[in-house]
Formats: sequence, C-alpha cells, structure tokens
Amino acid sequence: MRMAELYPVGQAVEIGSLVFAAEDIVRFAADFDPQPFHLDAAAARRSLFGGLCASGWHSSAGWMKCFVPFWAGECRRLAAEGIDPPKLGPSPGFTGLRWLKPVFAGDTITYSVTLLASRPLASRPGRLINTILCAGANQHGEPVIRFESTVLEFA
Amino acid sequence: MRMAELYPVGQAVEIGSLVFAAEDIVRFAADFDPQPFHLDAAAARRSLFGGLCASGWHSSAGWMKCFVPFWAGECRRLAAEGIDPPKLGPSPGFTGLRWLKPVFAGDTITYSVTLLASRPLASRPGRLINTILCAGANQHGEPVIRFESTVLEFA
Repeated sequence: MRMAELYPVGQAVEIGSLVFAAEDIVRFAADFDPQPFHLDAAAARRSLFGGLCASGWHSSAGWMKCFVPFWAGECRRLAAEGIDPPKLGPSPGFTGLRWLKPVFAGDTITYSVTLLASRPLASRPGRLINTILCAGANQHGEPVIRFESTVLEFA
Repeated sequence: MRMAELYPVGQAVEIGSLVFAAEDIVRFAADFDPQPFHLDAAAARRSLFGGLCASGWHSSAGWMKCFVPFWAGECRRLAAEGIDPPKLGPSPGFTGLRWLKPVFAGDTITYSVTLLASRPLASRPGRLINTILCAGANQHGEPVIRFESTVLEFA
C-alpha cells in the first residue's frame, strides 16, 4: 500500500501528544540550549516569553518522538489486516520550520502529519517522494510549530 | 556593534565541536527517535547506514549546543574590549535543513555560522533581520548538516 492510498492528500492525521513538563524542558535545555528562559522559571518570567518555555529544538524533536511509535503502530495495524504497509526510506531533511508560539511548561502539544504531495521520482523508478506537513498545536488549539519534510517511499 | 560589522558576510566562523559518543547517540535516540540504527550498533550495521549513527534531530540540536556558549563568549570578549555586543532577538525558525551524511558514533562535528545577509526590517525601524547559514562538518571535513536561519537584531 502506498502512503497516498493510506492518507488522503491534505487530511491531517494526529500522531500523538506530548506534555512538556518543566523538568523535561529544563533537562533538554541544560544539554542543548542553556538559555535563561529555558532553564529558570523566574528568569523566564522576566524575559520576552513571560514564562518557562521549551527550546525550539525540543518541540521539534517532540514531533519525531510522537511519529516513531505512531508509525510502528500503523505498520502493526496494517499487517494485522494483511496489508503491506508503505515502505519508508530516510528523510534528506526538512524546510520551512516555524516556531509560531512558545511552548510553556505544562503545555500539551498534539502533533500531526498531513500528506501534501506524493510523486514518482523520475530519476529512480520504483521510488516516490512524499512531501508532508508536520505540525504541532497546544491544548488551546493554537499552532506552535510547523515544518515541511520529504520522505522517500519504495513502491 | 552590528552583526554585519562583527562578522563579514560570507565568512564562516567556527562555533565549536561536539563528539558524538555512542552513549550520547543512544540516550538522545531513546528519548526522541527510537529507531534501530540510532539505538543498537548491531542493528545499525545491518541498516542502510552501516553503523550506529545519531538522530538528525540530535545533530541539529548540536548546533545550538555549540552556539549558546560560543555567543556568550563573544559577548564577554566584546564587553571586555568596551564594545557593545550585537543584541540578538529570538529566531522565528529556519529553512532548508539538509542531513548530508550520517553522523556516526565517535564522529566529531565542528559547527559553524556564516552571515549571509543583514538588512533593516522595513516594517519595524531599529530592527534588522540577519540570515545565517548554520553548518556542521565531520573530522574528515565532510559536510553533514546545514540549514539557514533568520535572527532578529535590535540596532
């Protein structure tokens, strides 16, 4: 089964939710992005963010944290129905990443994926390139992150 | 002092190096990207990567891990010379991220930043938008990651 048969183009699919607890925000930031508004609630209140908020690299990686178990579940679900799941290859990268709003301590981000396009790779028969929109919204329904990725598929 | 006075346009500046030890690769992947080639050396040898390699989200966040202390050092250095360091604002995101080669266990990635353009923000006097190229290369000088970011500056 192809990605484009499994997920209609343009239809968002939720892949999971992640709670950004203060201690998770601080632990990630201490390792990768040690700026005061990601490390210390009091300093964060005095910053332009107004409160402790997650590193953008943390909220980005959160998409992948949800996608990996989501995709494993989809593959199991399809296999149980006797359907060959789409065979995905590595991603060469992504583009257009926007941090739209801060992710504050205690926020729950629900991530989604939307297939935007799927086309055969002219140079390599038997391969397709899928363009997907990856997004996350907080518990108020406000978009906090989005980026577009390409994923190779073996037909 | 403005960014464009501190760093000539088009000139790469090294911001630091990061060793990707196997245990760091596995720890990050266990939390955010639990795929076999990021978790298990034997499984990784049988994968298309051919060896244990870092999640792309790990090598991306590695850029920030180097940039934060680099920039703090630059600000201290300039202040010690009696120069006002550039006042940077938050980044709204980035674009054109490419994972060019795998980052294998034991690799040392040297990250850099290159100022590509700096222009006044027409809509907000006193602010500039800097476009920067963020990159990383391994110990063989091979580029492994690149992306372009925009950073607000208060003039």
